[in-house]
Amino acid sequence: MMTTHEILLDAAGAKSAVAAADTATKNRALLAMANALVENSDAILAANALDMDAARGTTGEVMLDRLALSTARLEAMAEGIREVAALPDPVGRVLAHVERPNGLVIERTAVPMGVIAIIYESRPNVTADAAALAVKAGSACVLRAGKEAHRSAAAIVEAMREGLREAGLPETAVNLVEDTTRDSAGELMTASGLVDLLIPRGGAGLIRACVENATVPCIETGTGICHIYVDAAADLDMALNIVENAKCSRPSVCNACEVCLVHKDVAEKFLPMLKERIGGRVELLLDERAAGIISGKRAGARDFDTEFLDYILAVGVVDSLDTAMAHIAAHSTGHSDCIVTADDDAAERFLRGVDSAAVYVNASTRFTDGGEFGLGCEMGISTQKLHARGPMGLQELCTYKYIIRGGGQVR
Amino acid sequence: MMTTHEILLDAAGAKSAVAAADTATKNRALLAMANALVENSDAILAANALDMDAARGTTGEVMLDRLALSTARLEAMAEGIREVAALPDPVGRVLAHVERPNGLVIERTAVPMGVIAIIYESRPNVTADAAALAVKAGSACVLRAGKEAHRSAAAIVEAMREGLREAGLPETAVNLVEDTTRDSAGELMTASGLVDLLIPRGGAGLIRACVENATVPCIETGTGICHIYVDAAADLDMALNIVENAKCSRPSVCNACEVCLVHKDVAEKFLPMLKERIGGRVELLLDERAAGIISGKRAGARDFDTEFLDYILAVGVVDSLDTAMAHIAAHSTGHSDCIVTADDDAAERFLRGVDSAAVYVNASTRFTDGGEFGLGCEMGISTQKLHARGPMGLQELCTYKYIIRGGGQVR
Repeated sequence: MMTTHEILLDAAGAKSAVAAADTATKNRALLAMANALVENSDAILAANALDMDAARGTTGEVMLDRLALSTARLEAMAEGIREVAALPDPVGRVLAHVERPNGLVIERTAVPMGVIAIIYESRPNVTADAAALAVKAGSACVLRAGKEAHRSAAAIVEAMREGLREAGLPETAVNLVEDTTRDSAGELMTASGLVDLLIPRGGAGLIRACVENATVPCIETGTGICHIYVDAAADLDMALNIVENAKCSRPSVCNACEVCLVHKDVAEKFLPMLKERIGGRVELLLDERAAGIISGKRAGARDFDTEFLDYILAVGVVDSLDTAMAHIAAHSTGHSDCIVTADDDAAERFLRGVDSAAVYVNASTRFTDGGEFGLGCEMGISTQKLHARGPMGLQELCTYKYIIRGGGQVR
Repeated sequence: MMTTHEILLDAAGAKSAVAAADTATKNRALLAMANALVENSDAILAANALDMDAARGTTGEVMLDRLALSTARLEAMAEGIREVAALPDPVGRVLAHVERPNGLVIERTAVPMGVIAIIYESRPNVTADAAALAVKAGSACVLRAGKEAHRSAAAIVEAMREGLREAGLPETAVNLVEDTTRDSAGELMTASGLVDLLIPRGGAGLIRACVENATVPCIETGTGICHIYVDAAADLDMALNIVENAKCSRPSVCNACEVCLVHKDVAEKFLPMLKERIGGRVELLLDERAAGIISGKRAGARDFDTEFLDYILAVGVVDSLDTAMAHIAAHSTGHSDCIVTADDDAAERFLRGVDSAAVYVNASTRFTDGGEFGLGCEMGISTQKLHARGPMGLQELCTYKYIIRGGGQVR
């Protein structure tokens, strides 16, 4: 078995070649990686079957479904890689150009990060997505899959490396950590000088562990306690559609709505409508005032601070826009929050005052997504303020440097 | 004494008001802060005299000079704040605007960080600079000065708070940590949810401590082992001017040159010129091959990995551009590195291949500075790749959020 340190050195050795690769080479590699996934379907599905066998019994249905691969899912993964190939190359863009009075020409230019490490859990498709985005962004990557998905991830990486070799890129541009104990995650978090960016993709526990222990630059992703505030001036039918969509269209994702706050002036009318529309599918957890209007289960102490990721919605009644904003400031994870209102002043106050990655007026929080924002595929949704906020596309996987051309200037 | 936690809560309480302040209000506050510094000169100089008295005896001349204030230095600090007032407001700029096919209008908009913490050492002027930049960037700040400068910093903050009050901003927009033990630095590093950005400004030890211990987002600043590579195709007179300027114009700063690498084909000619030009002022530490050409002290094992911040220069001879770039990759801190050459191909290879915040052709590394880059005043020079790289001006002290305006769209 290769040690994690050896794997990090492999990635470091590959990073110059990946960074120097031109757009055509990177795209050729990506298309070859996609094809290799399909061509190696049998081997990948066999590895996945071993992972599934090992997981059965100890793992619930939802987790098993996340882990499972099929020919159709492999084809979708390949298609995802082809979509990354079709995106514009983020490397080399000149972000700012200035000619100084002394004649120095200074260009702020997008350049690759170098080595990107991604720690994730059981979804094998993250292996392909993350590798494709890293390669397109000109970086080598070191992937660490969850133990339960390791055999699948290894087979996927082996196939993708075929594609890299075909395109003349070093196969060590994409690496999978072989040690599946917790040690290897810790090593990635503290590999100063060898990891330029660490991205944890997974549950709240993993992300907290990275934020607390990482000494390498790290981006916090994903936890979403998203709010929809139905203002006194809301179009209630619109509000109903938005809450229904944000809660029910895919409850397991981070941009799903977990909390609905309703202005007291419309609560008497809106809450019965809400109960009728989604009460059959969604468990409504009511604060005291909401429970005075509709019947249902009372919310517990932690229910306004829980990412349910399920058909559950905490519902509260508030006195004003200000109370709603104060509640959001105290309970939001800074992912996506929305106001439904026909009052432009209320909308602007909400947009300015709510400190989240995505702040909406009159639209579902489910739009917080790289594709929906027009950024293309994404590596995750950042809920921190440093470097990247919201969906992280290819641009956010790059850094920049200043290139200064002179003719002998001294200071 | 207020606890550090209480001070952080004060800053959190002020951040909305600072973020919401319009440009005119912030500028009025900055000008009032500058005036208050001058008006309170007596009190500030008296506090500084106490710091100086306490430091004398245990502290060297260089440190004492850093700590010392005078009427002229206070006036320069006030002028620095006025310069920040004159810079464009970084808050509210629309960084990207897209209208999606479904009619959603998505704007990526620059917004304040919230609370910026700055841990620094003995230079009292950092107190004024950092506070001014934070306020202009719409953030509250929590400053932690070194123990030896605490009385001076407290008097400066007291004066600046007068200015904030005059402009109708909360005085808790600018806060100074009262606890001068190491505990308070540790508290700032781990104040998750209360510190949005931590910037250490000081020596390598402080920066390492922050990088290793911070659980809040942190930007590594400052350490500069900067290289100048004199290529085979260099104009040697230009090279001489550049090395002299980069080494001698201000050796104590991070953008000063610490290492000169010379291509073997020009070393016989260039090294004697270098010795003649700067050998009287600068101690040249020579590698084996350089020592075969000119006489001088031999470099020790660590001399190519040392930020001298003094009239000392490590000098080596290399076989090629590639060897020079490999040396820089192994020994640079990623701050500023330069090639002197008349060969455009060599220049472009160096610019692409060297992975530092600022990469130069034919100009002194001393230009790596917010003012010289046209960014205005700076909060420090980032040597990491996340968020900000190189000089951090007002833009780099902001984050962004996505503002999405819809008409009832669901997904």
